[in-house]
Amino acid sequence: MGDSGDAITRDELQLATRNHGMPLEALRWPLTPAGLHYVLVHYDIPLVDERTWALEIDGGTAGGSRLSFDEVRSRERQTVVMTMECAGNGRAFLEPRPLSQPWLSEAVGTARWGGAILRPVLEEAGIPDDAREVVFTGLDRGVEGEIPQQYQRSLPLDECLRDDVLLAYEMNDSPLPPQHGFPVRLIVPGWYGMTNVKWLAKISFAAEPFAGYQQETAYRLRQDPDEEGVPLSRMLPRALMVPPGVPDFMTRRRFLAPGRHTIEGRAWSGEAEISAVEVSIDGGEHWVPATIDRGSPDDPWAWRAWSWDWTAEPGEHTLCCRARDASGGIQPVDERWNVHGYANNAVQRVAVTVQPEGGNGS
Amino acid sequence: MGDSGDAITRDELQLATRNHGMPLEALRWPLTPAGLHYVLVHYDIPLVDERTWALEIDGGTAGGSRLSFDEVRSRERQTVVMTMECAGNGRAFLEPRPLSQPWLSEAVGTARWGGAILRPVLEEAGIPDDAREVVFTGLDRGVEGEIPQQYQRSLPLDECLRDDVLLAYEMNDSPLPPQHGFPVRLIVPGWYGMTNVKWLAKISFAAEPFAGYQQETAYRLRQDPDEEGVPLSRMLPRALMVPPGVPDFMTRRRFLAPGRHTIEGRAWSGEAEISAVEVSIDGGEHWVPATIDRGSPDDPWAWRAWSWDWTAEPGEHTLCCRARDASGGIQPVDERWNVHGYANNAVQRVAVTVQPEGGNGS
Repeated sequence: MGDSGDAITRDELQLATRNHGMPLEALRWPLTPAGLHYVLVHYDIPLVDERTWALEIDGGTAGGSRLSFDEVRSRERQTVVMTMECAGNGRAFLEPRPLSQPWLSEAVGTARWGGAILRPVLEEAGIPDDAREVVFTGLDRGVEGEIPQQYQRSLPLDECLRDDVLLAYEMNDSPLPPQHGFPVRLIVPGWYGMTNVKWLAKISFAAEPFAGYQQETAYRLRQDPDEEGVPLSRMLPRALMVPPGVPDFMTRRRFLAPGRHTIEGRAWSGEAEISAVEVSIDGGEHWVPATIDRGSPDDPWAWRAWSWDWTAEPGEHTLCCRARDASGGIQPVDERWNVHGYANNAVQRVAVTVQPEGGNGS
Repeated sequence: MGDSGDAITRDELQLATRNHGMPLEALRWPLTPAGLHYVLVHYDIPLVDERTWALEIDGGTAGGSRLSFDEVRSRERQTVVMTMECAGNGRAFLEPRPLSQPWLSEAVGTARWGGAILRPVLEEAGIPDDAREVVFTGLDRGVEGEIPQQYQRSLPLDECLRDDVLLAYEMNDSPLPPQHGFPVRLIVPGWYGMTNVKWLAKISFAAEPFAGYQQETAYRLRQDPDEEGVPLSRMLPRALMVPPGVPDFMTRRRFLAPGRHTIEGRAWSGEAEISAVEVSIDGGEHWVPATIDRGSPDDPWAWRAWSWDWTAEPGEHTLCCRARDASGGIQPVDERWNVHGYANNAVQRVAVTVQPEGGNGS
């Protein structure tokens, strides 16, 4: 992985036209409508026939086992409303910019995922005494860092035994769309998107830390390419706002009439509950508290709605918002660079021109 | 609209992370699954309450009228399977590159659209004797070319009276997703995407050619910014293939094992029936015919599947495909530049490395 100057390269563009973020006006919906949730596909979307698909479970003390799609769906169904964010969200704001999918702020979405709880599947397979991790293998294949591979990620065993970790086959009460992992994907609330392995093919118990590409090379915070780095796990806090007013097609600058407007958005953290959201209208110099809708205690992994009433004065403004969580996490005003461009939760900045009606105002 | 050198700008990236193409492996499906059909939204996706939404019909001889969502849905339902392509598809291959949504090849999709036929709605409103065009206004608002506007496009009256032009409220038998025009959009088979006005608010009869921004400034083929230009209408022929083998994550180069592989794809034209598809493995020097699946005569506006069996030899190859239609149209091997970057139907080029298993082969 190299880096680049300001200019987005053809390689990055190829990724940006395939994958997509969530247009930020979709923050209005508590559950992201189909097709608006962010999608990142490392290789190609596999074409899967659910009649022949099976999930292999390998290395259990009860012997190997296989679950058909019907067998997964016949198990007790559990749902979880979960906000999912790509670990690379915010990457394209970094300078120099790490070369990969060039996300700005939009790589997020919230869905109601439905499926079978993973824990009893593992228990029935027989969890070995020396198991430390579980390795999840997807059907998606390609070359990355010059290494041919299927997408694989491991998860510590204790995370796998949570009651809200699912083998999901539904998204917002419909079958998984192909690009979201049809027929079955892993769902791990609170963790960045790379954890939620799509198009699941195989689950294996492991006594040693998994050393695959997506664990050891990718998805680590590094200041130098040669250092071991810190593995990514849970989402850092982030707030995003619905950009107010109307956009310019090309620059996406916002135009708004003077007067009172409700600025609204959502905030989430994989570390702890959101404890505060603040708004700035001067690019982060001064901050005022927003009102948070505490949401449902049944949905601890869903983003929280927030709002703030702004009396907009004519002129140019840079609106910002930032979230704090109960673990003490807070978004930085400035980007924190790292080699691969992960976990950049610097505050959102929205350029707004406030001008009277008859200008370009809303 | 300016242009740029090789480097994609931040403004283009902002569009590319919001809008998205159809990942080309989705050519495998005759109907593009939800969320994989291309999306281009000029401004923001409007949030519409279908209980209060109404479609205003203005300028008819029977007096103005309004249709509620229930009234649109209670009319006779018609469906049409239609391939839709953005007029800007292929723009980012042009040099110098016109600055707008930087599409490569993926701005396409095919859906079964369901809705009410437009013609009887117009007839009931009373078509004025002097009507030459019908103007369609969407709810989406923004600034473009420094002009505040709602998205508006006109269509010649005779096109509006076709039996397959719909006020569509269904996509693949589900309600329209927000990003595809909920609750009601126009569907005009054969024309480029900009014709199919989303989030319809108003329909007006016009005696004079409509001079709005999206008609007179945008969506015209020009060699010079100051010339009047030729308005875009029907889609030029294009064939696309499912890129064979597996991709490199970053470069999207394909890796494939030697031997026999079926190369498959789809082809369409808004001008006439697809009459031939040809394939090249040497970047367009030599061409061989592919086999076309004629599809259903009930679906004249749907893309046609095609395939070709390739015995792949080790080495580097550039695969291309091109479509011809019954009107004599054929895709050019090289790009044809124009100011705004429209209708670039130059042949697709897919870089493939064929190497034995044990390399990166599939």
